[in-house]
Amino acid sequence: MDIQKILKQYRAGEIDLTAAEENIRSMGFLAVSDIAKIDTYRCKRTGVPEAVLAEGKKTKDLIKIVRAQMESNGRVLVTRVSKKKLKALQSEFEFIENGKSASVCIVHDGKTKRKENGGLVAFISAGTADISVLEEAKMTAEEMGCQTIEIYDVGVAGYQRLFLEADKLKDAKPDAVVVAAGREGTLPTVVAGIIDAPVIGLPVSTGYGAGKSGQAALLSMLQSCSVISVVNIDAGFVAGAYAARIANRMEKLRRK
Amino acid sequence: MDIQKILKQYRAGEIDLTAAEENIRSMGFLAVSDIAKIDTYRCKRTGVPEAVLAEGKKTKDLIKIVRAQMESNGRVLVTRVSKKKLKALQSEFEFIENGKSASVCIVHDGKTKRKENGGLVAFISAGTADISVLEEAKMTAEEMGCQTIEIYDVGVAGYQRLFLEADKLKDAKPDAVVVAAGREGTLPTVVAGIIDAPVIGLPVSTGYGAGKSGQAALLSMLQSCSVISVVNIDAGFVAGAYAARIANRMEKLRRK
Amino acid sequence: MDIQKILKQYRAGEIDLTAAEENIRSMGFLAVSDIAKIDTYRCKRTGVPEAVLAEGKKTKDLIKIVRAQMESNGRVLVTRVSKKKLKALQSEFEFIENGKSASVCIVHDGKTKRKENGGLVAFISAGTADISVLEEAKMTAEEMGCQTIEIYDVGVAGYQRLFLEADKLKDAKPDAVVVAAGREGTLPTVVAGIIDAPVIGLPVSTGYGAGKSGQAALLSMLQSCSVISVVNIDAGFVAGAYAARIANRMEKLRRK
Amino acid sequence: MDIQKILKQYRAGEIDLTAAEENIRSMGFLAVSDIAKIDTYRCKRTGVPEAVLAEGKKTKDLIKIVRAQMESNGRVLVTRVSKKKLKALQSEFEFIENGKSASVCIVHDGKTKRKENGGLVAFISAGTADISVLEEAKMTAEEMGCQTIEIYDVGVAGYQRLFLEADKLKDAKPDAVVVAAGREGTLPTVVAGIIDAPVIGLPVSTGYGAGKSGQAALLSMLQSCSVISVVNIDAGFVAGAYAARIANRMEKLRRK
Amino acid sequence: MDIQKILKQYRAGEIDLTAAEENIRSMGFLAVSDIAKIDTYRCKRTGVPEAVLAEGKKTKDLIKIVRAQMESNGRVLVTRVSKKKLKALQSEFEFIENGKSASVCIVHDGKTKRKENGGLVAFISAGTADISVLEEAKMTAEEMGCQTIEIYDVGVAGYQRLFLEADKLKDAKPDAVVVAAGREGTLPTVVAGIIDAPVIGLPVSTGYGAGKSGQAALLSMLQSCSVISVVNIDAGFVAGAYAARIANRMEKLRRK
Amino acid sequence: MDIQKILKQYRAGEIDLTAAEENIRSMGFLAVSDIAKIDTYRCKRTGVPEAVLAEGKKTKDLIKIVRAQMESNGRVLVTRVSKKKLKALQSEFEFIENGKSASVCIVHDGKTKRKENGGLVAFISAGTADISVLEEAKMTAEEMGCQTIEIYDVGVAGYQRLFLEADKLKDAKPDAVVVAAGREGTLPTVVAGIIDAPVIGLPVSTGYGAGKSGQAALLSMLQSCSVISVVNIDAGFVAGAYAARIANRMEKLRRK
Amino acid sequence: MDIQKILKQYRAGEIDLTAAEENIRSMGFLAVSDIAKIDTYRCKRTGVPEAVLAEGKKTKDLIKIVRAQMESNGRVLVTRVSKKKLKALQSEFEFIENGKSASVCIVHDGKTKRKENGGLVAFISAGTADISVLEEAKMTAEEMGCQTIEIYDVGVAGYQRLFLEADKLKDAKPDAVVVAAGREGTLPTVVAGIIDAPVIGLPVSTGYGAGKSGQAALLSMLQSCSVISVVNIDAGFVAGAYAARIANRMEKLRRK
Amino acid sequence: MDIQKILKQYRAGEIDLTAAEENIRSMGFLAVSDIAKIDTYRCKRTGVPEAVLAEGKKTKDLIKIVRAQMESNGRVLVTRVSKKKLKALQSEFEFIENGKSASVCIVHDGKTKRKENGGLVAFISAGTADISVLEEAKMTAEEMGCQTIEIYDVGVAGYQRLFLEADKLKDAKPDAVVVAAGREGTLPTVVAGIIDAPVIGLPVSTGYGAGKSGQAALLSMLQSCSVISVVNIDAGFVAGAYAARIANRMEKLRRK
Repeated sequence: MDIQKILKQYRAGEIDLTAAEENIRSMGFLAVSDIAKIDTYRCKRTGVPEAVLAEGKKTKDLIKIVRAQMESNGRVLVTRVSKKKLKALQSEFEFIENGKSASVCIVHDGKTKRKENGGLVAFISAGTADISVLEEAKMTAEEMGCQTIEIYDVGVAGYQRLFLEADKLKDAKPDAVVVAAGREGTLPTVVAGIIDAPVIGLPVSTGYGAGKSGQAALLSMLQSCSVISVVNIDAGFVAGAYAARIANRMEKLRRK
Repeated sequence: MDIQKILKQYRAGEIDLTAAEENIRSMGFLAVSDIAKIDTYRCKRTGVPEAVLAEGKKTKDLIKIVRAQMESNGRVLVTRVSKKKLKALQSEFEFIENGKSASVCIVHDGKTKRKENGGLVAFISAGTADISVLEEAKMTAEEMGCQTIEIYDVGVAGYQRLFLEADKLKDAKPDAVVVAAGREGTLPTVVAGIIDAPVIGLPVSTGYGAGKSGQAALLSMLQSCSVISVVNIDAGFVAGAYAARIANRMEKLRRK
Repeated sequence: MDIQKILKQYRAGEIDLTAAEENIRSMGFLAVSDIAKIDTYRCKRTGVPEAVLAEGKKTKDLIKIVRAQMESNGRVLVTRVSKKKLKALQSEFEFIENGKSASVCIVHDGKTKRKENGGLVAFISAGTADISVLEEAKMTAEEMGCQTIEIYDVGVAGYQRLFLEADKLKDAKPDAVVVAAGREGTLPTVVAGIIDAPVIGLPVSTGYGAGKSGQAALLSMLQSCSVISVVNIDAGFVAGAYAARIANRMEKLRRK
Repeated sequence: MDIQKILKQYRAGEIDLTAAEENIRSMGFLAVSDIAKIDTYRCKRTGVPEAVLAEGKKTKDLIKIVRAQMESNGRVLVTRVSKKKLKALQSEFEFIENGKSASVCIVHDGKTKRKENGGLVAFISAGTADISVLEEAKMTAEEMGCQTIEIYDVGVAGYQRLFLEADKLKDAKPDAVVVAAGREGTLPTVVAGIIDAPVIGLPVSTGYGAGKSGQAALLSMLQSCSVISVVNIDAGFVAGAYAARIANRMEKLRRK
Repeated sequence: MDIQKILKQYRAGEIDLTAAEENIRSMGFLAVSDIAKIDTYRCKRTGVPEAVLAEGKKTKDLIKIVRAQMESNGRVLVTRVSKKKLKALQSEFEFIENGKSASVCIVHDGKTKRKENGGLVAFISAGTADISVLEEAKMTAEEMGCQTIEIYDVGVAGYQRLFLEADKLKDAKPDAVVVAAGREGTLPTVVAGIIDAPVIGLPVSTGYGAGKSGQAALLSMLQSCSVISVVNIDAGFVAGAYAARIANRMEKLRRK
Repeated sequence: MDIQKILKQYRAGEIDLTAAEENIRSMGFLAVSDIAKIDTYRCKRTGVPEAVLAEGKKTKDLIKIVRAQMESNGRVLVTRVSKKKLKALQSEFEFIENGKSASVCIVHDGKTKRKENGGLVAFISAGTADISVLEEAKMTAEEMGCQTIEIYDVGVAGYQRLFLEADKLKDAKPDAVVVAAGREGTLPTVVAGIIDAPVIGLPVSTGYGAGKSGQAALLSMLQSCSVISVVNIDAGFVAGAYAARIANRMEKLRRK
Repeated sequence: MDIQKILKQYRAGEIDLTAAEENIRSMGFLAVSDIAKIDTYRCKRTGVPEAVLAEGKKTKDLIKIVRAQMESNGRVLVTRVSKKKLKALQSEFEFIENGKSASVCIVHDGKTKRKENGGLVAFISAGTADISVLEEAKMTAEEMGCQTIEIYDVGVAGYQRLFLEADKLKDAKPDAVVVAAGREGTLPTVVAGIIDAPVIGLPVSTGYGAGKSGQAALLSMLQSCSVISVVNIDAGFVAGAYAARIANRMEKLRRK
Repeated sequence: MDIQKILKQYRAGEIDLTAAEENIRSMGFLAVSDIAKIDTYRCKRTGVPEAVLAEGKKTKDLIKIVRAQMESNGRVLVTRVSKKKLKALQSEFEFIENGKSASVCIVHDGKTKRKENGGLVAFISAGTADISVLEEAKMTAEEMGCQTIEIYDVGVAGYQRLFLEADKLKDAKPDAVVVAAGREGTLPTVVAGIIDAPVIGLPVSTGYGAGKSGQAALLSMLQSCSVISVVNIDAGFVAGAYAARIANRMEKLRRK
């Protein structure tokens, strides 16, 4: 279409040969970037919010990056924030939301609202130690417009809690379920046997001794006899975004 | 409902006290198993077909198990079948379907049809070495009623193949995408940047030296900057069933 | 029994159909939870005391959880407590007992006594570095009503200490023996050759260089030519509870 | 006593100074060996049968060692026997018993009976692939005089099988329970939540990909939230002997 | 230029609007593929020859792929070929060259000559066991037009061999040096201290025990105090191509 | 030549037998050291600057070594410097240059200029976290006389950034390219597909969970399908020096 | 002898039967302990000095143990001492000697002299980072009466330093040589090719990235083509004591 | 001396200037090689026999290398020989000696006698599975002129065997002791507590499950509380040569 326009302009003598070529060339590059420009428009295209990993960044660099992202996208999710960095962010930005756990927060411009109508994601954790990572997953999903339900602190040794809440879980009909677990990491396997929504296993870096730091949990989930998929240890953001990706599409079909 | 029926029968004197209690008790156990009986009714409930891992089983045991599953479910998927075992199965069973790759086949009773209307799953592989594992994933998804499209042999060094087929992929609008890759395992990351369907990374045990046998691929996918989920190395069945689980639900919403 | 009661009540018209069904249903759920309610009644049923892992918990969360457990069970064992957290607990709770090593303590309500008549467990350590973990094991066993004897600081290079105390050990006739060892971890193997009580190997995270942090000890125990079983590195609580589980049952048989 | 005898003989002039010293010295060495002679009398003292690891031995060496053990102990357990070696043993020895699985057998002299009254051990396996290792454990326990019950093929995805057999298991009141599991290895954790007999986790070298060859199962068991102990991967003999050690002592208390 | 041609053709009425757009669009895609079409034109663009990994491919698939590559590129390098597969290739193709070691060969069409004037690469090996991998590197470099010199079998314990040949090596003035070494892998470090050409360390999968299969060699090279770069264990093709890439550019500068 | 001189002196009676032998012997040792004296003259011979690893050294030792090197070579590069040590160096030495990142600096004597005309090296990083390591590489190359261009913060998810700068990169015609990447480490693979200069992969110790601390990045690069070479994780100095080594030689050929 | 004395006393009626038996029995236990009492008399018997590992011990426990050892043996070696603990020891004990490196010291009673005439041990280190561990080895050997020579800071890249000192080393004719090296750990291999005294490789925990913390050095030494033996990473005490053990025996033969 | 001779010849006009220089130069190279020629004269200088690793070599290459070594040294030790290769060697060479275990043999020229008067080395093994590796060590030591004593099959569970033979071992006064052990590898630790000769731990690749293939044994020995040194897993040749090196020097001192 646009090419036709340029061709016509050139034929009509409105632009000269060089201009015509240049215009087409710049389009060509747009064509290239259309395929490649994954990054800048990622947020808009796939609904995954911009996320900044605070860990390993100097506070002043963090603020700079957060500001840039916030100004360009309206909202930005900051993950793995220490208490100290959270304070720095709070004194720097006017609009900041943080969950129960200090390790994640959202900085926004006061105008851009979070997305809505993103479907429903359930979050289940095996113990109190997993909550901080699960919180990161949940806030990510919420940024992607999802409604969330949570069943916290369902330990391996407490299947009955899960069984008792099984109907509640089934009745809610979540589009996807994120299950966090450390140590031996069996909870996702059990959940996947109870509900037929896609289950995302989220290994958490708890436990000491052999298999510590979430290694046993990760291997356990990879070896699971149930049908689950897995993200990296402590990768709350990925788990939340992946679940929301699924839920977003389901909600979209529902609203058609 | 059923409890009411027993209560009425007892009140009406049709059954005595012991029989009434027994009937209710057996129901109670059914209630228990309703929650727990993940296994026997798994196929019906979640749509995941029965799968038998041929590897590590003696041929005669394999045949026995396959027969049992086939008789109880009508159809059974056999994974990681050697050529020798495939022959044994072929001479034993009348109705057997196998893919291009010998390593997977379906045994059925000639009557039970495979499911239909399960949504659409795309399968992408990085190289010829990955096809056998991807085939396992694809046949699993097909057993779960999915339609499938495949883009085989898109190597890491051949992104343009993927880019050229990107529109085809986007136009097909798959409900989920399984991407198999060995060696450095970057293909799922790239695919997840192009399409917003949920991507399942399937590491394949290729490569030699450090990081061989799919280890580099697995770690690479777990560390991916894109939003993908992962299954274990060579776990074609899990990848296919997980993708189909998502697609099944999407198709259901579509058909409402 | 209870079902019969409801049936009779219904037949007698004391309750209506809906109430009868509901009552039975709630029983059914109890039946379910009877199997599943591992958690809440765990303490009573298996004699393993409630234990709270202090490590990785925030002090205020720790206090909250400890208080809840203490109020519901009367006594609670807190493991892997830092000096700082111990102080916080001491200033918060009236009744608190701690061993020689700061890393474990018991919080109780001043009324609930520890169990008694739990059999006899022996505790043997290879060196001073292992004592803190062994202390955790010992206090766990004591909470489970066990009497304990201890042979501390029997190094690998000091078998004669063990041999000289062998008679004392044999005469005591312990129901189970917990043997802690770091570095090359051979002590459990040697002890299992001397006494025929079940030996539980408890690897301790000492040692530097290759095989450090208890890894050599763990592997060594798993490869042992003697008949021993093993728990995870530094898992004092599990070792103590496992030994006590055995001793409890033996003492029960003895008291019949 | 014996020393007194020598002293008296010397005083009485029946033996001279050198003879007296020598006799006492040889006794001294017996005293030494009394402590150290773990090996030769191991069978009698602790009830663990002689076991020969067939794997890695040449057939002719295996036969020689088996014969020696059999002649000295009456009975000998041979573990990890290949089919080929089993045949060699069968053509060599008159009295040979083997289980369902070819990988373990007992060679005896036709006169020495296996021990009796050794208590009760339960054996539970997660899948058909675990049976061969569990068989090794079971035959070991039987050689140590134990009665055994078995619940085979209770997969992770089939908890209801376990729950349905829970009463049977509880009613049997086993003195110890060996639970074999490969892949994610969660079954011992679940069993330990149901029954309060000591549970021995026996990881089995099944599974492919990350965590394969029983590694995920081992780590999972070491990280278990339940109170279990663990033996090495595929160490059926150790698991069986350890369980029997516990059961033997319990039965002894029962028979007092 | 080409765009201008199309523009002029369109203006001149030689082609219509649709044809003009289409032609430009196909160019656009070429622009895209210009960046992305790494694969198909890889050989021409960077001088790296097509290489087919024989290992893990079925013989008939291998032949098909080799034929396709050979027909499209004139020459194709086949790596990690077993003796059996080499024979199959020899009976299938008319023009085939193989080195001293069976594990690498070149299939060509009898017309396409190998490149020339690619600079000089030296190949040094620590022992006879490394030669097969080094041969793969050397043939790759030769395919890329390089001249090669080789100093084979210079063991770690035989530095003097290297020292005695140091002048020869220096006088030859290679553009790059590939040094293969297994076991402790120190040779590249030593060579990099003698000559200032870029040294590529090529770890070889020899050695047994801890650090076997080239692991110690790889780590050793990564930890080297000298300035060297490293490729994966046994990655002869990559080492040869990387060295040739450097040499090609140097020779080009020389010939300017 | 020199030997002839001594021989003649001796024949002429200018020196006696002992002196003649001694002179020749000292030459012999020079011959030896000519081969071996890698260290002292390393800087002059290969153009790699002296570098001192600050990490793990006490501040006073660091100062002593830096002074010695600076006095002997005029300039010395100090790597992995903490902020604290940088301050100590700044208060100790008059002439000190440091990059944006505190972790690297150059101490010199105010007279010795850095080398010039060393060719051109490009530096590409995947994210802000990689910049500190890349800075170390860049300053090393600059010390070796290289001009440098940098394309910072090109994430895996931002290939378009790279593609858009591809022409700039190609037009610059760098002699070598250092590509730093953490997490899944795919950037070097992609860059090597775009440009035919030798690419050095520099894995950076970022990322958490499985494959953290640069392990996934390292394995990914070693398994790369592209032709790249690799240095150790965080080895900025080696990467920079290796790239400069190549560039130096190319520039030399260019200037001939 | 002693037994004869008791026998005679008894025969002479100086002691009664019970006393005679008791005396002999206590000797018997001495006989036992003669074999087993490795620990208490270890210092005297094998010449290895008592060593206390300070690391991981609380300061007050450390002081207590050091005092006990010092009082019983006259002298005690304390290894891996932090500066803080060294100060505490210095303020507690009158006689304390420490090397250049703070990490090792000797506490004695002012009277007990260190052993003499223990032979000659050479100590060679690859770099300044290795000196602290080597110092520990050297002081251990000196405590065992050895004379020592040291060649410090001979880096891998500085073989000529070693070659230049080779004659000095050979002329000294050491009985054993301890060679410390971190990173790629090749120095022991080279030294073992120059001198025929037994070489003990001592890997040091330097280096970062893959193979860090001495792992590459350890593997490298284990894979060495030279004939060397190895101790654990940073195990200075073991290396020194092992070398001294050899030297002690050689010196003894020399002095015969 | 030699230099003086040449100088004098030149002064006397017996040789001309060029010849004199050349002669000196060749000496110079000898001087160089005197230091560096580790390899060719290794056998003579350090008494370590030439050893050829058969594993991984093709039979015809093996024969060629063995012949070359045999012709140059008179005798050559071949290690890790398969039965098949042994047969090939036997049909090729007239003079060949092999031990009980097929895995090692000596090929010689019928004239060159093995060395004598090399001291005494003891060889102790934990089990029958270790004998083959120990045999390799023993034959190596014998080639180096050592007398040997062996105590085979002293299992971990059979310390008394060792204790009973302790006097025999002590009376023999070996110059060095090689102790082979697989699985948990504790035997060297125990032996080092009994005898004060230097102990070389030789881990053997037995055992299955976690820590298999000698890994647990290696780590265990590295972590040993006793003073021992270690060689790589299955490195019988190194262990034997190292022990012989020590024994050779001791015997030499003894014979002075």
